[in-house]
Amino acid sequence: MFNPQLTPEGHLKHLLTIEGLPPAILFQILDRATEFEAVARQEVKKVPHLQGKSIFNLFFEASTRTRTTFEIAAKRLSADVINLNVNSSSQSKGETLLDTVDNLSAMQADMFVVRHAESGAAHLIASHVGPDIHVINAGDGRHAHPTQALLDMYTIRHFKKRFENLRVAIVGDVLHSRVARSQIHALTTLQVPEVRVIGPKTLIPRNVERLGVRVYHDMVQGLKGVDVVIMLRLQNERMNGALLPSRDEYFKYYGLTPAKLAHARSDAIVMHPGPMNRGVEIHSDVADGVQSVILKQVTFGIAVRMAVMSLLAAPMPHSAA
Amino acid sequence: MFNPQLTPEGHLKHLLTIEGLPPAILFQILDRATEFEAVARQEVKKVPHLQGKSIFNLFFEASTRTRTTFEIAAKRLSADVINLNVNSSSQSKGETLLDTVDNLSAMQADMFVVRHAESGAAHLIASHVGPDIHVINAGDGRHAHPTQALLDMYTIRHFKKRFENLRVAIVGDVLHSRVARSQIHALTTLQVPEVRVIGPKTLIPRNVERLGVRVYHDMVQGLKGVDVVIMLRLQNERMNGALLPSRDEYFKYYGLTPAKLAHARSDAIVMHPGPMNRGVEIHSDVADGVQSVILKQVTFGIAVRMAVMSLLAAPMPHSAA
Amino acid sequence: MFNPQLTPEGHLKHLLTIEGLPPAILFQILDRATEFEAVARQEVKKVPHLQGKSIFNLFFEASTRTRTTFEIAAKRLSADVINLNVNSSSQSKGETLLDTVDNLSAMQADMFVVRHAESGAAHLIASHVGPDIHVINAGDGRHAHPTQALLDMYTIRHFKKRFENLRVAIVGDVLHSRVARSQIHALTTLQVPEVRVIGPKTLIPRNVERLGVRVYHDMVQGLKGVDVVIMLRLQNERMNGALLPSRDEYFKYYGLTPAKLAHARSDAIVMHPGPMNRGVEIHSDVADGVQSVILKQVTFGIAVRMAVMSLLAAPMPHSAA
Repeated sequence: MFNPQLTPEGHLKHLLTIEGLPPAILFQILDRATEFEAVARQEVKKVPHLQGKSIFNLFFEASTRTRTTFEIAAKRLSADVINLNVNSSSQSKGETLLDTVDNLSAMQADMFVVRHAESGAAHLIASHVGPDIHVINAGDGRHAHPTQALLDMYTIRHFKKRFENLRVAIVGDVLHSRVARSQIHALTTLQVPEVRVIGPKTLIPRNVERLGVRVYHDMVQGLKGVDVVIMLRLQNERMNGALLPSRDEYFKYYGLTPAKLAHARSDAIVMHPGPMNRGVEIHSDVADGVQSVILKQVTFGIAVRMAVMSLLAAPMPHSAA
Repeated sequence: MFNPQLTPEGHLKHLLTIEGLPPAILFQILDRATEFEAVARQEVKKVPHLQGKSIFNLFFEASTRTRTTFEIAAKRLSADVINLNVNSSSQSKGETLLDTVDNLSAMQADMFVVRHAESGAAHLIASHVGPDIHVINAGDGRHAHPTQALLDMYTIRHFKKRFENLRVAIVGDVLHSRVARSQIHALTTLQVPEVRVIGPKTLIPRNVERLGVRVYHDMVQGLKGVDVVIMLRLQNERMNGALLPSRDEYFKYYGLTPAKLAHARSDAIVMHPGPMNRGVEIHSDVADGVQSVILKQVTFGIAVRMAVMSLLAAPMPHSAA
Repeated sequence: MFNPQLTPEGHLKHLLTIEGLPPAILFQILDRATEFEAVARQEVKKVPHLQGKSIFNLFFEASTRTRTTFEIAAKRLSADVINLNVNSSSQSKGETLLDTVDNLSAMQADMFVVRHAESGAAHLIASHVGPDIHVINAGDGRHAHPTQALLDMYTIRHFKKRFENLRVAIVGDVLHSRVARSQIHALTTLQVPEVRVIGPKTLIPRNVERLGVRVYHDMVQGLKGVDVVIMLRLQNERMNGALLPSRDEYFKYYGLTPAKLAHARSDAIVMHPGPMNRGVEIHSDVADGVQSVILKQVTFGIAVRMAVMSLLAAPMPHSAA
């Protein structure tokens, strides 16, 4: 099957979604990230891999946090980074998305990191750019957020060593979450035998079982015996809507408290993509507790983004070095 | 005649306007840009010419696109770039323009790239700064946009090899266009024998013939036999005003369609400074057609801006190297 | 007494406030800045001291000017700089200040430059971050602005050579000024024998004498015989409030005119932290006059910030080099 993310030889050309990527590619990224994790502990946290490359952070939707992680990753690879918040500029002048992309491409861009409120925007851009330009999806609508899923896989492997014997629960607003969608694809691709989603009926997509997950509406049942608990962020805008009764109600049933976490395995790790709503989807005692690996996710996220960028820009920098 | 852009020895000190620059300076910039165009095709797209220099993008008027081209150009010259959108900061604290400039100068700025809504702002700044600081006008009011005109000349020379035998038409809202004004000065300085401006009477400045151009109000007449068609952007704010009947009406008479373009020479090139209003001043079949060199203009724009910056910062880097 | 800014060995770990810092630390910073002042006059204005370090400009309150000086200082030290204007991002997503800091720390930040509207914000962050992260207070509420005070001390030493025989007057809105508070601590720490504050009763803090200053409400009396006049910025928002009758009234009594300045020593220097309100707290003839050293303050500010950053990041770079 044709995969627009891969070259005919099977190398990574764009990173748009986890769906359809072979396990070997995921492991290649995770392994490369392991090398870069060591770089971050050096006195000089830089490598020359992307020297002279121009990387455009093309954010059609504001996200300082995600943009910052890509900016740091690119700078540690010695790239030149240009930040573009596009809402306020060309788009308001009536230029189309693809005209904007064509123009930036004509400036000899090497890579676009794209965040967009519309699902499919990164795919559209990837299908449009020339053969020397690489596209990374940094979140598109409700569709995908592949680097987040990859850093989550990196975190799981770091703490659990392997994927083949794990039970993983994803908890919360799965319906609106591009993070959850990418995590599910990554976990199933990596052969995690049991992936669960837990949440109220209004926040679980219909037919999600087709993706290879089990659905739970009860936290205690869903968390029983799991090795990994991944909490999702509850968007503020959902809380006042028809989908949820109230913040307090949500926290009572789906907020991760020490009591609920006790139903997971005693060595279970707790993850969250951030930013957290303390007291809404997670209790501070859990967020700051010994089982939380939330800040490690952030650290690993830099290494994983460096890995993706360096693989896209130069498939085999080591042999070239 | 005293020209504030030139040193007593006739070297370029600031780039404020094309008007009054000798042809030799324009050719010097175009020739230097040819060297930098090759840099952009290298694996590492950087040269050390401006290492350790501090370049301030001083944008009093928002323009992500123009700012980005200068930022890329400066970074490829290894300069340190500081982006300042000044509306929202010092100006709102009641500091005057020249106090802002004095302060940034005191931070040992080497170069200011200035975009301002008022005509003459770049000149004012250039007349105020110390002898070691260079100013580039990145667009001031309706007055001038010299780097845009230079990249247009570069594009014309690239495709037409020489200027002495050309007919060039500039089409659209000449009245409000700093781009058109700079293009006319550049074309006449470079000895283009026939420069035409085409547009409705309400959008052509009175007495524009004094600049050495012929005025046409009819597209078919104006495009007949030309080698180069330069379309201008129609500002959205004009469309609802008293100057124009409607977008559709404008497109009917002055929008560049394949049918109208057929009146130009068959090897004519089509240019546009961007961002385009498709379906207003230009038909997509032309914008994306074989005669369009619009994206090449963007590419050449980086090389031309590198050339201007490197000439200002160090008149003879090659002999110094 | 425990000082959170110092290591147990007495080295500078954070720069949060001048209060409590030993004179030796202040002199160490001023001496280091002298070295960096020379760097700024080099052809290539860069040194490698902070290569590969990640410095975050964490501005919870907008200040292009101050942010720019830190950005330039960090880039001249070869650091990677990430600018974060935090109002518009994570904070609006409901993330707490310390969660934001934890996240950025997890990205292996080396240094935070913090500007915040709340007094104590930088202290809070410094007390929270890990042992390898350094915090610089770039202004917190009405509390402190230590790098401004240090560059003022540098300026005074540059022009007056020593501190032990000086009379210094600080004029204006001392009540709301973090700059004034830091200046008073710096001047008294450096053994300036006479520090005066001058202003209307409504803008002088009660009991300010306890800090070791003399209070004057009359400009002529207060300026008599002083070596240094430090003007403070009058915040626009004060002018319409109950604290002040009117701008004109304020200028009449406390605006620094040539006539009032004549009461100071004939070789007195005039300083201002900027941005100035000409015609409110200072007359243009003074601001631009021969006694004004206001732009030198800006120049020295870069060197002083480079000194602080380099001392925090590596206490003894010379022995390491």
